[in-house]
Amino acid sequence: MPGNSFGHLFRITTWGESHGPAIGVVVDGCPPGLTLSEEDVQADLDRRRPGAAPGSTSRRESDTLSILSGVFEGRTTGTPIAMQVRNADIDSSAYDHLRDVYRPGHGDFTYEQKYGIRDHRGGGRASARETVARVAGGAVARRLLRDEGVLVRGFTKALGGIAAGDMDPWSADDGPLLCPDPRATEEMVRLLEALRSSGDSAGGIVDIRVKGCPAGLGEPVFDKLDADLAKALMSIGAVKGVEVGAGFEVSRLTGSRCNDVQDSAGFRTNRAGGILGGISTGQEIILHAAVKPIPSIGMEQEMLTQRGEMVRLSVGGRHDVSAIPRIIPVCEAMVCLVLADHLLRQRGQRGKPGGGS
Amino acid sequence: MPGNSFGHLFRITTWGESHGPAIGVVVDGCPPGLTLSEEDVQADLDRRRPGAAPGSTSRRESDTLSILSGVFEGRTTGTPIAMQVRNADIDSSAYDHLRDVYRPGHGDFTYEQKYGIRDHRGGGRASARETVARVAGGAVARRLLRDEGVLVRGFTKALGGIAAGDMDPWSADDGPLLCPDPRATEEMVRLLEALRSSGDSAGGIVDIRVKGCPAGLGEPVFDKLDADLAKALMSIGAVKGVEVGAGFEVSRLTGSRCNDVQDSAGFRTNRAGGILGGISTGQEIILHAAVKPIPSIGMEQEMLTQRGEMVRLSVGGRHDVSAIPRIIPVCEAMVCLVLADHLLRQRGQRGKPGGGS
Amino acid sequence: MPGNSFGHLFRITTWGESHGPAIGVVVDGCPPGLTLSEEDVQADLDRRRPGAAPGSTSRRESDTLSILSGVFEGRTTGTPIAMQVRNADIDSSAYDHLRDVYRPGHGDFTYEQKYGIRDHRGGGRASARETVARVAGGAVARRLLRDEGVLVRGFTKALGGIAAGDMDPWSADDGPLLCPDPRATEEMVRLLEALRSSGDSAGGIVDIRVKGCPAGLGEPVFDKLDADLAKALMSIGAVKGVEVGAGFEVSRLTGSRCNDVQDSAGFRTNRAGGILGGISTGQEIILHAAVKPIPSIGMEQEMLTQRGEMVRLSVGGRHDVSAIPRIIPVCEAMVCLVLADHLLRQRGQRGKPGGGS
Amino acid sequence: MPGNSFGHLFRITTWGESHGPAIGVVVDGCPPGLTLSEEDVQADLDRRRPGAAPGSTSRRESDTLSILSGVFEGRTTGTPIAMQVRNADIDSSAYDHLRDVYRPGHGDFTYEQKYGIRDHRGGGRASARETVARVAGGAVARRLLRDEGVLVRGFTKALGGIAAGDMDPWSADDGPLLCPDPRATEEMVRLLEALRSSGDSAGGIVDIRVKGCPAGLGEPVFDKLDADLAKALMSIGAVKGVEVGAGFEVSRLTGSRCNDVQDSAGFRTNRAGGILGGISTGQEIILHAAVKPIPSIGMEQEMLTQRGEMVRLSVGGRHDVSAIPRIIPVCEAMVCLVLADHLLRQRGQRGKPGGGS
Repeated sequence: MPGNSFGHLFRITTWGESHGPAIGVVVDGCPPGLTLSEEDVQADLDRRRPGAAPGSTSRRESDTLSILSGVFEGRTTGTPIAMQVRNADIDSSAYDHLRDVYRPGHGDFTYEQKYGIRDHRGGGRASARETVARVAGGAVARRLLRDEGVLVRGFTKALGGIAAGDMDPWSADDGPLLCPDPRATEEMVRLLEALRSSGDSAGGIVDIRVKGCPAGLGEPVFDKLDADLAKALMSIGAVKGVEVGAGFEVSRLTGSRCNDVQDSAGFRTNRAGGILGGISTGQEIILHAAVKPIPSIGMEQEMLTQRGEMVRLSVGGRHDVSAIPRIIPVCEAMVCLVLADHLLRQRGQRGKPGGGS
Repeated sequence: MPGNSFGHLFRITTWGESHGPAIGVVVDGCPPGLTLSEEDVQADLDRRRPGAAPGSTSRRESDTLSILSGVFEGRTTGTPIAMQVRNADIDSSAYDHLRDVYRPGHGDFTYEQKYGIRDHRGGGRASARETVARVAGGAVARRLLRDEGVLVRGFTKALGGIAAGDMDPWSADDGPLLCPDPRATEEMVRLLEALRSSGDSAGGIVDIRVKGCPAGLGEPVFDKLDADLAKALMSIGAVKGVEVGAGFEVSRLTGSRCNDVQDSAGFRTNRAGGILGGISTGQEIILHAAVKPIPSIGMEQEMLTQRGEMVRLSVGGRHDVSAIPRIIPVCEAMVCLVLADHLLRQRGQRGKPGGGS
Repeated sequence: MPGNSFGHLFRITTWGESHGPAIGVVVDGCPPGLTLSEEDVQADLDRRRPGAAPGSTSRRESDTLSILSGVFEGRTTGTPIAMQVRNADIDSSAYDHLRDVYRPGHGDFTYEQKYGIRDHRGGGRASARETVARVAGGAVARRLLRDEGVLVRGFTKALGGIAAGDMDPWSADDGPLLCPDPRATEEMVRLLEALRSSGDSAGGIVDIRVKGCPAGLGEPVFDKLDADLAKALMSIGAVKGVEVGAGFEVSRLTGSRCNDVQDSAGFRTNRAGGILGGISTGQEIILHAAVKPIPSIGMEQEMLTQRGEMVRLSVGGRHDVSAIPRIIPVCEAMVCLVLADHLLRQRGQRGKPGGGS
Repeated sequence: MPGNSFGHLFRITTWGESHGPAIGVVVDGCPPGLTLSEEDVQADLDRRRPGAAPGSTSRRESDTLSILSGVFEGRTTGTPIAMQVRNADIDSSAYDHLRDVYRPGHGDFTYEQKYGIRDHRGGGRASARETVARVAGGAVARRLLRDEGVLVRGFTKALGGIAAGDMDPWSADDGPLLCPDPRATEEMVRLLEALRSSGDSAGGIVDIRVKGCPAGLGEPVFDKLDADLAKALMSIGAVKGVEVGAGFEVSRLTGSRCNDVQDSAGFRTNRAGGILGGISTGQEIILHAAVKPIPSIGMEQEMLTQRGEMVRLSVGGRHDVSAIPRIIPVCEAMVCLVLADHLLRQRGQRGKPGGGS
């Protein structure tokens, strides 16, 4: 299978390179009869758009979305929804000096190894710009989930070693970094400014929460809800680690402390992160994604060329100082896609005779 | 899609409940002409078998494997390989008192919510016994990888808060817990004994390494190698977190420190864990899985019943004190399955004209 | 993708060779809560079993089915249903002289070309015995359909050039060949006897009908109901042609004669065979499958060997004179599998807001 | 699974409605390094374009194709190839009177039943215009096959009861109907003119041939080459029957006459149509598709409305008198897609150790 589709019953197929004419997505399997407009999708794209946040790239893209099929008189028809965004602010010449260079931390070398050919301009298909299509597809999934009362939202949990305090993310104002902790946010903004000056970049941790997810989603033993969520998040370029609920902390707990006790009013704790046996419990779903620092940095780095020589270069171009916060809507989109898919799978496979609650 | 198949070109479908007559797997897509015997598969099953390690359950299963199809005169034929293991040491009566009880930390409640019916005996399909089928399927994948020079091996990195020192796992003796650090092993064994006495259990961290993986495996943008590995590991019941390379540590690094510099002799460091842009680099692949403590513990716990009442019960039955080390061959099996699948996918999709190295 | 799975939401994976220890199937995706017993499945297997019909092979198989998973206290649990049948009456020595021979009309040559290795005993995986697993899986699908009021049944429409009259197949007695026309049946039986004497074999046409199929099944534009039915039938070894409704007759009709007029009481005619635009109309579904004569015949034939020599041989072994009527339950099984799959797909993808009647 | 993707390793996803802004396709899995230009694809689209053939619609579409991704400096990169065609000559008002009407022989009623909503303009997604995307995707498959020496071509075998003589289609000139028989062509053209005058339409039979297909393609037991070809052809709106090789004729043959004898020089006959046991033999592949008459005819027909009333209407709009010959490039495209997919599947699954010739 080629790897540019995601999901089974609610499925997206994405396409497009950073410096090609456009980026797009086909959503297949969206149920008919949903109201859907370009504005619904644009709202999510705007949250991902460069320039809004501290530490963001100076690439200016309006990222105006067009819906080309699958919607008739404001409602989905059950046929594929094709959407696309033109790439407007392309300056490929900024990449000429990188044509034969393997940028550290990027997929240049591996694409070359895999395909024997690559579009070096702006990273080609491996560019983070690819996530525009994920966000557009995820917005349709989010639209579907909204009708079911499911809410997906991501927050900044840490940036460059600065951690947000342990406060309820939902009650907090967004702030410029979508971090619920205003004091941590201030520190983070200062760090981003300092890194921009020094030509370096920062990683962080995204906290993704789901409210209103019904119990019963997930398809053991392989397509467990947490397994599919882990894949969804890890498929985002910058993500190097995923946790569900207590995550790596479970390695230090005993069973008597880790088990969440359930009584008739619900679960008393949520170390499981809302998923047991690979199936949603109906609690809040809690996920963390570790985000690596942007590999394209202003300072010079040693780089290998295709001819096997070493050069010292600055990657140049226009880059964020951190993938946070712009990666947050991408994380949300991937989680929405998984939930929409599992919602339809549960609908399809729960027979009349038995069936869940 | 129902969730009991894994992989695309190299695909397994597993079946079986803990207290049903048998557990099995069908491997479809294994290339023809490989030598394969029941002994090849049995060797991996024996490493997973209960009783061998400290802290292991007293359930005694010989786990004798039969191959029922797909092998002719000692070689695979390219047709599906069906394998199965009888469940011998079944004592379902030990579960009678749990029939209507939702054991904390297990999937009892969620299976009930999803399916409206469940086989409560030994956890039914949600039992860790299900992993017998994964290990059998993984053994065929491992057999295929062996011919390509790919070696997959897991180690104990931490158990109950005791961490192994930072030593090369490959050079170490196995020891009873597959931990490369003999002093940490001693401590871990003592901890397991103490927990068994108190009726509690422990979690830990597994370190999985791959040597000899060729560059070029992985199918961006969704079926990236790390994305599929994350799903594979997170689909194992006890796993709550997955890291690739430096994992969550990347959140604290700057770009200049996180990027692995490559020269003509290869990469100088491996914070990426052998995967860039979702494609293998040819370096060692490094993965970590966070394993939660066994939820079935000897001490009494409060539990909710299907009728909404609270009871105090000990789960009883026969359980390990920790999923480590028996989960290690399961982790290895899942990694073998992902690599075998991506190896075939790369073979299929790399056209003659271009194609990687 | 390897090719031994069929269906998406209701999916079977089959395995087993003609002369291996067993033949089996895993049904994944069957909804939970259905009553299901081994007897339900056995009933369909018995209709396929050799020996019952005129012109049948003398191979004697009781074909006793075991269910190994997925059913708890008489009900499906939503987990995979593994079923298998032991191969009892195996006489592999009857195939020793065919080890290096490409039997005409069989897959011997092509399996050799594809896999470079083959189990020659009884045709290995390419044997019609493989269809035991289809029938077992189809029986579970049929069980699901029964609760929805969907009835699938096949009939003999022609055998060796003898055509049944144009009578309603549903109202007719079965007879030994499942042909609604008693006079044609008599002729067919005589033909089978004559062919057995001369060591030859006959083809025919199967007529498969579906009653009670709800409108709305089928997933355009590629997974149309008729497209999936065509694939299902053509995947049966002996089938060389498939028709829906008027089939090849449409090539001779004008539009004004071919269009089925619909009024408020329903459709007045059914040249479309119950499918329009790839979606079921709610009418009877009508399918035809062209079945080739059994290629294994008693008379001597010229055959090529792997070494490139020509030999004159009788295939020997024990073979039917015609695949009809034993192929009929196989055709029914495949149609049941398609309908069950599309029923679940329609359930999964029909969103609440819109959705069909 | 939603139904708008076709293929596994070489996969297309299509989208677009007849009267939407555009029609498109994403090709995922095309091997890297192939030369590919818009002209390569345009050539196939031009063969399908209305207006060229006798009996064609007066809709005028230039059908100018744009490639939006996946090609860099004239070569495929292994990333998804997005292509689209704007819908230029749209006159939706011609369909206003059909908004609530179920046109006989069309999918209007079934789309309504399935989705509860439909785009009535020009048939929406159910329009034959959808096949533009198939032809574009098929052109990329054809490009891949060309490098392997595989040639796919379709011919008119019959139109409205007029059959072409039994001549080698490859040696014949195309003529306006792609029929190898010039005298039959003349008759057919006269028939089309007569039907246009009377406001009626005609069906026919397409003969599709493949030269140069290597032995070994096809994945038993379900994804046999003939099974996938049958699905591919039956998924085209107008097709109601499919034959492989001798097709329905096999029902009248005896085994001794039907079996193709093979000697060291090859097969002496080709009743199997180039496929044995679901795997290509290396001979010419021979397929027939039965094409129904265009259901949209000029003469008045009785039609049911959504409100349950009967009306007498002419469908109006601009329609072909026969789907032949414009359906021929669509048939070819589907066959190319199946062959490209199976070529990659065979590449992926044939292991080094054994493997075919």
